[in-house]
Amino acid sequence: MNKIAITTGDPNGIGAEITVKALKALNLPKDKIVIVSNKILLKDLDKDYEIIEIPYSKSDIDYGHVTRAAGEFSFKSLVKVCELKPKAIVTGPVAKNALHLAGHNFNGQTEIIQKYLSHDGQLAEMLFVAGDFRVLLLTRHCALKEVNLTKELVIIKVQNLVKVLQKKFGIKSPKLALCGFNPHAGEDGILGNEEIDILIPAVNILNSQGIDISMPKPSDTLFINAGMNYLNKTKDEYDCYIANYHDQGLIPIKTVAGIKTVNTTIGLDIIRTSPGHGTAFDIAGKNIANPEGMIEAIKQVVFENK
Amino acid sequence: MNKIAITTGDPNGIGAEITVKALKALNLPKDKIVIVSNKILLKDLDKDYEIIEIPYSKSDIDYGHVTRAAGEFSFKSLVKVCELKPKAIVTGPVAKNALHLAGHNFNGQTEIIQKYLSHDGQLAEMLFVAGDFRVLLLTRHCALKEVNLTKELVIIKVQNLVKVLQKKFGIKSPKLALCGFNPHAGEDGILGNEEIDILIPAVNILNSQGIDISMPKPSDTLFINAGMNYLNKTKDEYDCYIANYHDQGLIPIKTVAGIKTVNTTIGLDIIRTSPGHGTAFDIAGKNIANPEGMIEAIKQVVFENK
Repeated sequence: MNKIAITTGDPNGIGAEITVKALKALNLPKDKIVIVSNKILLKDLDKDYEIIEIPYSKSDIDYGHVTRAAGEFSFKSLVKVCELKPKAIVTGPVAKNALHLAGHNFNGQTEIIQKYLSHDGQLAEMLFVAGDFRVLLLTRHCALKEVNLTKELVIIKVQNLVKVLQKKFGIKSPKLALCGFNPHAGEDGILGNEEIDILIPAVNILNSQGIDISMPKPSDTLFINAGMNYLNKTKDEYDCYIANYHDQGLIPIKTVAGIKTVNTTIGLDIIRTSPGHGTAFDIAGKNIANPEGMIEAIKQVVFENK
Repeated sequence: MNKIAITTGDPNGIGAEITVKALKALNLPKDKIVIVSNKILLKDLDKDYEIIEIPYSKSDIDYGHVTRAAGEFSFKSLVKVCELKPKAIVTGPVAKNALHLAGHNFNGQTEIIQKYLSHDGQLAEMLFVAGDFRVLLLTRHCALKEVNLTKELVIIKVQNLVKVLQKKFGIKSPKLALCGFNPHAGEDGILGNEEIDILIPAVNILNSQGIDISMPKPSDTLFINAGMNYLNKTKDEYDCYIANYHDQGLIPIKTVAGIKTVNTTIGLDIIRTSPGHGTAFDIAGKNIANPEGMIEAIKQVVFENK
């Protein structure tokens, strides 16, 4: 399908609201967009975009709450959008505990999309993008104590990243910065051995393949320039930062870019973006949600697919 | 001793250089300051501040390198400054691997200062300060996989923090934000159990004692407002953020405040500050180091002790 497909995420959150607001703000040609959702959630749309309906009834709407029906809707929307094989996918935020309540034990949308779109061993990766500030996560949604890396995993993920930066972002020779796993990048093994055992050997192999990636650097100081360059709109030394775990990569980019941070799934045939925020249950149904995250998420794939 | 005492840190780093530059920039009365260091490192001083000499010879200087002699000097400087019992302590950056090479197996200066100044079970804590943006670390320098918290530890550390914020920072009823340990604050146990087992029970007890601390919040979004408020010099909702581990707390504050982030040791009788950066071996001895971190570190205790 030759359109950009949008899911509205958990119907008890702000997903449908920000989708409607973002589409109004962007004013895209209606033949470019298909929405996988339900008409009762999209009554405020200003154009008759194509809507592919996922079953949901008005009585199921329960703003701000984790429900089985909402989790089922979120899950079915994602499966459907994968079946469509659109030009690109934009997903509204879901509640993982609602997915689990509905019996779908995935730790995030990325994992579902990987299951339904990956072939030939393709790995979905989470790249966060705000302007030219980009952060790849080496691991995704898992407990901090369960973050486990191997040299092989680091090598494959960085190789995939380089291909995507070249093909999708037009960066011929990407320059990459690698975060240390431990504080102070382990300080020669005093504060942990993951640098010595995993990261440095991986960097040596990647360098030998011509990939420009730094040795692991202390992650508390590494992002100082990136953050300031994003805010000042100046060119940064690095095209992408590589973080070992979720919060290590997301804290710096979100601290400066806020909800304008776009969660981008790379590594599959179809690129997928999502606002870098959650369902915002606390303000759901009040028509006060800020659509900037959704606007950035849609803009990124519209731009990609021009 | 009724002065502010400054150590210059690892003599192969930038510590002495930024101390000299900071003292020139601040132009403090010379009777307020004592420097624990060595005259050969301080030849560019513009006033005859009192210097307490730690043995070091010119031939020992080896800029940019980790040496046993430098580690010994760093260690002896810290022991001496603790013996002085000054009004406040400001420490230049040290290299932990130099300390280790000299046989002093501490993971940081904070640990040394705790050993020599703590009495009656006092615990030294690391508070990072940039303007009104403050971050307390619940754990210090340890490998990420060895970060271990208990409910009791969280309670004691937060109680201590509240006392310091009241007494030293003049904040009557501090409002505190607690970071989740896991991504998305564990999302009800889906992404880890530290929130359910440790953090939430600790918060419940602290709340029952009248301490205004939030439930654990997803740390990737928690710092968005704090960062922007620091940059815009506007009042933030929280007086202090509480991070579970080193990089979780230091990444956000350093990403926006850079080397102006002051590392503050609280919980002992004497407050100690230090620039929030390292020895900068790559530029040591070149007279190009930026003294802003040291200036902020000295300013904080000068202000405190007025």
